Amino acid sequence: MEWLSAKIVNLRIFNDAAGVMNVSVLDDGGDIIVVSQFTLHASTRKGNRPSYIKAANPEIAIPVYEKMIRSLEGNLGKKIQTGEFGADMKVSLVNDGPVTILIDSKNKV
Amino acid sequence: MEWLSAKIVNLRIFNDAAGVMNVSVLDDGGDIIVVSQFTLHASTRKGNRPSYIKAANPEIAIPVYEKMIRSLEGNLGKKIQTGEFGADMKVSLVNDGPVTILIDSKNKV
Repeated sequence: MEWLSAKIVNLRIFNDAAGVMNVSVLDDGGDIIVVSQFTLHASTRKGNRPSYIKAANPEIAIPVYEKMIRSLEGNLGKKIQTGEFGADMKVSLVNDGPVTILIDSKNKV
Repeated sequence: MEWLSAKIVNLRIFNDAAGVMNVSVLDDGGDIIVVSQFTLHASTRKGNRPSYIKAANPEIAIPVYEKMIRSLEGNLGKKIQTGEFGADMKVSLVNDGPVTILIDSKNKV
């Protein structure tokens, strides 16, 4: 989890003055919002009804979620924004780029 | 690609009247927007600079993108919305749920 947190904070995904992806959220003084999403674990291999059986139960997931928030705050050096765990929310955003990067801590060196 | 297109159109990810994820975008009469994103292929295993070397060149990617659009339109039975390939865009959205589901056509039965 510390690997993932440090990766998120230090990944160079924002443009520098020359328009090159060269700046991290830490460099840029940016903010982070973390939103938990059990649907990321949906399995869509079979049929048309996604299976969420691989997602962790809240008893396991909530401590992981909260530890991740604390770890990001430690690496960023300030408070971060968070979603409400397990809630039905409307998250409004502007996807600028758009840039979407998947980071899987299972796939680290 | 036809597998992926049919999966997207028929996946039951919208709430029915009872608040259960039971309705597909086709059932619901909803619309689809497709946005190409080479950053999805970013490799973040090593260092802090994502590698995009696995993303296809435009000569390969554009025909795939356009074929996917046609396939979705065929399955949905109407025109869909699209992003501009390779452009820097600001995509404004409200992520309702939020629900994010990854479907990888390499991982089909």
